Amino acid sequence: METFFSFLEKRVDDCSSLLCIGLDPHIPDLKEPTAASALDFCLNLVKQTSSYAAAFKPNAAFFEVFGADGWTALKQVIDAIHAESNRLGSKIPIILDAKRGDIASTAEAYAKSAFENLGVDCITLSPYLGKDSIEPFITNYEKGVFLLCKTSNPGSGDLQDVSVVGATGQSPLPLYEHVAYLAQTWNTKNNIGLVVGATHIDAMKRVREAAPDLWFLAPGVGTQGGDLESALKAGLRKDGKGMLINVSRSIARADNPKPAAAELRDQIVNIKRDLNRKAR
Amino acid sequence: METFFSFLEKRVDDCSSLLCIGLDPHIPDLKEPTAASALDFCLNLVKQTSSYAAAFKPNAAFFEVFGADGWTALKQVIDAIHAESNRLGSKIPIILDAKRGDIASTAEAYAKSAFENLGVDCITLSPYLGKDSIEPFITNYEKGVFLLCKTSNPGSGDLQDVSVVGATGQSPLPLYEHVAYLAQTWNTKNNIGLVVGATHIDAMKRVREAAPDLWFLAPGVGTQGGDLESALKAGLRKDGKGMLINVSRSIARADNPKPAAAELRDQIVNIKRDLNRKAR
Repeated sequence: METFFSFLEKRVDDCSSLLCIGLDPHIPDLKEPTAASALDFCLNLVKQTSSYAAAFKPNAAFFEVFGADGWTALKQVIDAIHAESNRLGSKIPIILDAKRGDIASTAEAYAKSAFENLGVDCITLSPYLGKDSIEPFITNYEKGVFLLCKTSNPGSGDLQDVSVVGATGQSPLPLYEHVAYLAQTWNTKNNIGLVVGATHIDAMKRVREAAPDLWFLAPGVGTQGGDLESALKAGLRKDGKGMLINVSRSIARADNPKPAAAELRDQIVNIKRDLNRKAR
Repeated sequence: METFFSFLEKRVDDCSSLLCIGLDPHIPDLKEPTAASALDFCLNLVKQTSSYAAAFKPNAAFFEVFGADGWTALKQVIDAIHAESNRLGSKIPIILDAKRGDIASTAEAYAKSAFENLGVDCITLSPYLGKDSIEPFITNYEKGVFLLCKTSNPGSGDLQDVSVVGATGQSPLPLYEHVAYLAQTWNTKNNIGLVVGATHIDAMKRVREAAPDLWFLAPGVGTQGGDLESALKAGLRKDGKGMLINVSRSIARADNPKPAAAELRDQIVNIKRDLNRKAR
């Protein structure tokens, strides 16, 4: 049995990719505003991009919006990724983007829903309720979490950038950095990572210093304006891993998602090679 | 058309109650671990307690855990509350306890799911992503939100109690108090409230000072150990309103939920009367 991040690293090696393919069936991108159409949209994306996907990340909101039918479609998308993994002979981790965060038995119910019923490997969570709200999701080291740390949206600073003191016995530091320190401390089973937006490069550098070992899930490249090279330079670990670049719309809206994913995978490989050369 | 909190206050006046009845179909409390059993459990609670409910609060996690069937049951519970409101001739607000928090179009999808598809009036949200993540939920002033401020769980202090400096130009203050100030500022349409646990009375006093006008949703009385009188003393507004006391298990697990709810409603009325006398 392996920890969640050992599993992810194995897949990263298998596909030579750091791409996390977001499965976000936005209604305007669908043929019809129905769960069936959302399902078709995702199944096509999975089929087209699986060779280049270090992970898939379905976003719960775009399924929930279709009610019970959406939930059925979400389960079908997850089952289809499992089938695609079998076909490829390389298991692709599935991260449920749900940003849940609740206490005690409620957190347990969300964990059961994600890991047992839906069958995903990892989930995004809010850290606002503290460690006991994370616990039910990390008890099993084969399952992982990405905690929100510094998000990619313009308003992220309202809370995440406030200066906090005393928490780590150091000089004032932004709240997101405090979260990074906490996550680093809590990560005793190699199954906690951080969401760090590629739209905030300075923040990403600080988070990498605070949490040198943790995996980042980095949204914000592409449509949201984040620069790929700057993000990789700021966020990669010394071993050239430790970072999933999330892409959703820029691949989903491409005329042909397969070559779009291949090109982005290759761009990342090339940037990593150049960074590696410079570091020598 | 009225704002969400005008609507809530009207209901509070109609039923002389500050009780928010939590609809949390925990699996151990059900006859069978099925969505149908969760539905029965909630329908019974709604029927028994509606006369004393200032609001109902279904918790999304305990429905999600049953997948698509759970989602259907959640919608049926909400429809049943609407029917019960019609029967009573007094509309009972429905707060979806979901603690969502996401950005841009994702937040819009969650808002559409809750307000349009499920048909609730209010939702609980995490503040960690900042104001733009709240915006899609508060655009329509008839719909409301309760933002997590100081939660009732033991680990809430990991983030919520860290000392923030400089944010409001004052001396260091706990993060939860900063959230209270932000919420007070953001509440331009009378549709933002705060979740403040009844297990942290000192924190509740501080939040009431920081946000003298906002409504609180206060979990933690009963099973979690919060004291009703202390909570009301710390959290009520000067007008004797401004606070919903959430109860779930202590009513749901009573041999007879109806008199249990009636008794708790009366306890609150009596405590309020005593507090009012002392204040004169």
